Amino acid sequence: MDYYKQALKEHKDLKGKLEVKSKIKVDSKDKLSTAYTPGVAAPCLEIKNNKNEVYTYTGKGNTIAIVTDGTAVLGLGDIGPEASLPVMEGKAVLFNEFANINAIPICLNTKDTDEIVQTVINISPTLGGINLEDISAPRCFEIEKKLIDSLNIPVFHDDQHGTAVVVTAALINALKLNGKKPEDLRVVINGAGAAGTAIARMLMDLGVKDLIVLNSRGILDPQDLTLDEDRVELAKITNPRNIKGGLSDAIKESDVFIGVSVKDVLSQEDIKSMNENPIIFAMANPDPEINPALAKEAGAFIVGTGRSDYENQINNVLAFPGIFRGALDSKAEKITPEMKIAAAKALADVLEPDELSVTTILPEPFDQRVTPAVSEAVAKAWSKNSK
Amino acid sequence: MDYYKQALKEHKDLKGKLEVKSKIKVDSKDKLSTAYTPGVAAPCLEIKNNKNEVYTYTGKGNTIAIVTDGTAVLGLGDIGPEASLPVMEGKAVLFNEFANINAIPICLNTKDTDEIVQTVINISPTLGGINLEDISAPRCFEIEKKLIDSLNIPVFHDDQHGTAVVVTAALINALKLNGKKPEDLRVVINGAGAAGTAIARMLMDLGVKDLIVLNSRGILDPQDLTLDEDRVELAKITNPRNIKGGLSDAIKESDVFIGVSVKDVLSQEDIKSMNENPIIFAMANPDPEINPALAKEAGAFIVGTGRSDYENQINNVLAFPGIFRGALDSKAEKITPEMKIAAAKALADVLEPDELSVTTILPEPFDQRVTPAVSEAVAKAWSKNSK
Repeated sequence: MDYYKQALKEHKDLKGKLEVKSKIKVDSKDKLSTAYTPGVAAPCLEIKNNKNEVYTYTGKGNTIAIVTDGTAVLGLGDIGPEASLPVMEGKAVLFNEFANINAIPICLNTKDTDEIVQTVINISPTLGGINLEDISAPRCFEIEKKLIDSLNIPVFHDDQHGTAVVVTAALINALKLNGKKPEDLRVVINGAGAAGTAIARMLMDLGVKDLIVLNSRGILDPQDLTLDEDRVELAKITNPRNIKGGLSDAIKESDVFIGVSVKDVLSQEDIKSMNENPIIFAMANPDPEINPALAKEAGAFIVGTGRSDYENQINNVLAFPGIFRGALDSKAEKITPEMKIAAAKALADVLEPDELSVTTILPEPFDQRVTPAVSEAVAKAWSKNSK
Repeated sequence: MDYYKQALKEHKDLKGKLEVKSKIKVDSKDKLSTAYTPGVAAPCLEIKNNKNEVYTYTGKGNTIAIVTDGTAVLGLGDIGPEASLPVMEGKAVLFNEFANINAIPICLNTKDTDEIVQTVINISPTLGGINLEDISAPRCFEIEKKLIDSLNIPVFHDDQHGTAVVVTAALINALKLNGKKPEDLRVVINGAGAAGTAIARMLMDLGVKDLIVLNSRGILDPQDLTLDEDRVELAKITNPRNIKGGLSDAIKESDVFIGVSVKDVLSQEDIKSMNENPIIFAMANPDPEINPALAKEAGAFIVGTGRSDYENQINNVLAFPGIFRGALDSKAEKITPEMKIAAAKALADVLEPDELSVTTILPEPFDQRVTPAVSEAVAKAWSKNSK
């Protein structure tokens, strides 16, 4: 199937993939008088008297906004708010289909960090959570940080943390197959943007100690004056053996390669220089850092990519619906590192030992077990955490 | 039925009256690949290359925001954004039920005029229209004006113009029954807030020449230094006979009383001092300016109120769904005075001559003829207007 041609046709026919539907049929004066005036004054007054009652009488507790400024959409880059809407509608479709969450696309007419923060704060009173999406680095870090500090509802930049959760889950299951332990691994992350940074931090939370992160100029160097504050910080806490150079220097005798960069940057020679049973997650979109067949030929034990037409698709849709479902169900005020680790472990554990293999390290997106497992683990981690 | 008790129960059971639903079932890799990545990139690129294509491939053309700051909600006043949500959800329910429009409640965390304007501009790229709701006067005037100037999508403050359209329709039909003409009328409007101001301007557009507007201190006086700019302007263009004083001075020998004020301010003596076959629209909520039975007893020819339990309910729901439907269908860039007059005339004309009576000057909210009639008239008025 030509997905592009078919998508154009479907989008044209649908004119929008979402509907905002009433849950009630307003077909009598009585219905009108309870759904709207005068009866609606009663829940309004209950909430006025106790703001927390907004969760009892309205949809706040099941409604999130998907907020973007359209600056880093898919592999397309800065295409603007209007052009990003098909993606945000698609994401809202997945929130609805996989987790029964009301998700509203908000595509912003500004790229100014402070204005984005203020706009989201201004529209937040009746939202239960904020999914930040496709906002370019490094602004995405500052926006997320400021919003987490300002709001008491979960704020989650999916390109960072959703990706990190699924990669972590994939790694947990891959390690079950090659018998290695997080604390003994040498991990190389190629790409120091939103996803790469979040993956690095999450793998350290999982117990990984030897981690090297590279950007397009090579291994992150804390002395590099072109790096922003967050990248300097990341450079300082990674690369414990203090390796200098590029990807071929970093990858030698490592166990895991994680690519969130660009196509074809990983060679068969690189893989051959790795330790035994190496794990390769080559997630550049749409074309991976190395063709999976070439990677296997060079000795890769497990290969994952971002694509559905190769084995082991590492797909955010396995994480974000369940993470928000769990956060909303537990009225979490934020998404903590513990909740993300719990989500990754729960996602990994969806696959029974007899389902797990080098070509199946993650469940399918349509596996009905995924959202309940992830959401329960996330809700439990919040409850434990917040006590 | 105790509407308040029933409304509380229903709102608690529903936990939100809206659902954001997917129009498509995502149950296969192919569906996922056209609704989301990679296929979704195709409509994104079409829109990136021609911004106007956002109407072809997304829901922008059928999606509006209902924006409030919660400062003037129903008769409840400034109850805040959270407490206003049940009303905004109710309004969204009516947009969906009566006009098949996707309406998203946006309840703002700020009362600052400029910040409200900037926030709405920031979230506007993927919206087809803005319904401003329950924002207190005089800020509502400035906010609407600035947004209309800044945006090329319809911006409509329903408390002003929706009310004005329905009152105008009611008056058109009332005049069919008492045989008077707009240009010969003396009209008194008690209340110079959002609704009163918009009604006054719209009735002048209808042809009314002798109009007196009062606020709580009496007939508007252009010399009154406590009035804001818009009220001074209104005072200047009304009250052609230059009457001084209060309601009993204004109403003497008038033909129409329109109340958008508070309960029980109109007396039977006031009505007795009016011209023959007077028309009384006493729309204070929840209790009218005079009890309809007392008004009739004092000689009122026709009495309308805002309530569904009296005859002749003057209800905004007769206007706003059709107005936005027509504006969206015609891709109108704003709602012009001509479109509002067209809406009022179309709404009035829904009732056939044999359906019209002193107790039935407007159709019922559930009359299936209303939205098509209003939306067609509005779309036609825009097309004519914009050529």
